[in-house]
Amino acid sequence: MSTDRVSVPAPADWHVHLRQGEMSELIAPHVKQGGMSLAYVMPNLSPPVSNAEQAASYIKSLEALAPETKFLGTMYLGPELTPDEIRKAASLGIRGVKSYPRGVTTNSDSGIEDYDVYYPVFEAMEETGMVLNLHGEVPSDASKGICVLNAEARFLSHLEKIHARFPRLRIVLEHATTRAAVECVRRLGDTVGCTITPHHLALIVDDWAGRPINFCKPVAKTPDDRDALQEVIREGHPRFFLGSDSAPHPLASKYPSPASVGSTHDFVASCGCAAGIYTSAILLPLCATILESFGALDKLEAYVSANGRAFYGEPAPAGSEITLRRASSKIPDAFVHPKHEDKSDADATKLQVVPFWAGRELTWEIA
Amino acid sequence: MSTDRVSVPAPADWHVHLRQGEMSELIAPHVKQGGMSLAYVMPNLSPPVSNAEQAASYIKSLEALAPETKFLGTMYLGPELTPDEIRKAASLGIRGVKSYPRGVTTNSDSGIEDYDVYYPVFEAMEETGMVLNLHGEVPSDASKGICVLNAEARFLSHLEKIHARFPRLRIVLEHATTRAAVECVRRLGDTVGCTITPHHLALIVDDWAGRPINFCKPVAKTPDDRDALQEVIREGHPRFFLGSDSAPHPLASKYPSPASVGSTHDFVASCGCAAGIYTSAILLPLCATILESFGALDKLEAYVSANGRAFYGEPAPAGSEITLRRASSKIPDAFVHPKHEDKSDADATKLQVVPFWAGRELTWEIA
Repeated sequence: MSTDRVSVPAPADWHVHLRQGEMSELIAPHVKQGGMSLAYVMPNLSPPVSNAEQAASYIKSLEALAPETKFLGTMYLGPELTPDEIRKAASLGIRGVKSYPRGVTTNSDSGIEDYDVYYPVFEAMEETGMVLNLHGEVPSDASKGICVLNAEARFLSHLEKIHARFPRLRIVLEHATTRAAVECVRRLGDTVGCTITPHHLALIVDDWAGRPINFCKPVAKTPDDRDALQEVIREGHPRFFLGSDSAPHPLASKYPSPASVGSTHDFVASCGCAAGIYTSAILLPLCATILESFGALDKLEAYVSANGRAFYGEPAPAGSEITLRRASSKIPDAFVHPKHEDKSDADATKLQVVPFWAGRELTWEIA
Repeated sequence: MSTDRVSVPAPADWHVHLRQGEMSELIAPHVKQGGMSLAYVMPNLSPPVSNAEQAASYIKSLEALAPETKFLGTMYLGPELTPDEIRKAASLGIRGVKSYPRGVTTNSDSGIEDYDVYYPVFEAMEETGMVLNLHGEVPSDASKGICVLNAEARFLSHLEKIHARFPRLRIVLEHATTRAAVECVRRLGDTVGCTITPHHLALIVDDWAGRPINFCKPVAKTPDDRDALQEVIREGHPRFFLGSDSAPHPLASKYPSPASVGSTHDFVASCGCAAGIYTSAILLPLCATILESFGALDKLEAYVSANGRAFYGEPAPAGSEITLRRASSKIPDAFVHPKHEDKSDADATKLQVVPFWAGRELTWEIA
């Protein structure tokens, strides 16, 4: 028996990148378009959101762009964050602090290298109910045998240590990609949650090998790792929930070329493609399509709404259901800022964002 | 004490892709430019080199483009290869047969799926002294847990089985990338050799994650795998030797974009970057630079000349030494076919090949 309609109360995305400037103008409204009522917004702007004032001001700017969406703010863990700053942020409604290991992802050059120095900050977060969001990778270091494939597994001892020291502090291991991470979160206490992105429920390493459009950090891992992510969502484990890690990059940054950077000489200096996958604008139908593909459609509400809202203490407002209907809908090839719509389709300089699974069919759409 | 000059007798590249048409015109002369006297040429043209006549004719076309280089030909393992065809090829001077698992690399759609059916061919190869060159990966299959990271390790049982059945047949495991492969070849008999590319002595997975210029098949693996490759070269093990797997791809194929394919719509249909790393034009100085970086410069002769020539029974001609001198030389940003030199540097349609380590300094050059 197949279902033709599915309703979920006020879906929430507990990990999203909404950027600044023109990019933000383009994508902030996509949160609602993708079926989400709430967006928990990452602070890795350039420069990072490093104090309470900046976080509050950033949230205001997003509200101006998308008044119907509820935005919750975070700050970037760094030297500016003192216990006093945490208390100030809590009073301004800021909900979390994000920690990036140095250099592992977009705008993470200010990331931290050692957690002990932040214990007074974590104490203040525990007191005020603020959440610690961990990008769970250690930096690659070939001399220690660390590469992007084992960077997450090697990070887990940090998570365990912080949790042991601050058992009442709510901690989220963000965008888990490995069986090791899932098993670690399972065996920790109720204050430890874990986000899983829809793309990591779909991708393995083969999908990003030679396909920068599917390249993100942490990288998608092996079939066995993907199985572990699917299993924990299929069982509806209450501490695992949606954080899309949706991150827009201009196509010319995902696929650089001499034409987009100016010359072959400038191009070969990096040859690097931006890490990040964009899903905001299609998020809820994408989640439904992917969960159904591995027999977990009945856990859609747990994944996109109930579990995350319970963990963060943000119950769905009354009358906030979103309904999906079974219908084939094609994912757009690209989203383009209106200012750039008149440029040639192939113009390397225009601001366009190619979403995950661009051009493919989803089997659900928002009713 | 550091050496300032190194001489090696007649370096030989036992695995190289030289293509057809304009690309071949550009790169066939690069074999000599890169310091090699001999090139053992792969048959994965489009369509593949599938019989003795085609192989002989392909070698003639390469000789016309680069008369001073010795080219040795191979055929693609497939249905056209009968024991009679093997004997005919041997009489025409063709030296080997290359096997590609179906679909794992460039132009491998005709690759084989099961080796048993080729046992009569292998018998004829054993009789005539022809070499079996194995692309050692099984096709990815997520339902069996197979992905690009373990595809080589999963292949090794095929190598062991063929060697056990045909102990006198010379077999080369091509472009090994893992500790598992090195250990497997070590424990097999003297008829089993192994090529290692210079780029796999330098790269790990982090280097191709988001950098298509470093993306090739088999993909570079973990630091521990790279250590194993470096160790076996540093010890000068006689059955491990240079096969560059140098493979040129037009830059517009390595880094596709809407501008290079025509439109965003056509682009998103694949988003795929060609697999392959180009090293022919800089090969000997690159090998010296990389071997010296891990303390193996004293094994340069074993790696680029002695070991491979001994395995194939192709001793270096008298008076064929090539000398390298210590000197900083910059790797070109790109190689461009003369026909295309007048086009703009950023022209997405021009035939240009960006080499490995483009723009970086080598510490050796050909004297």
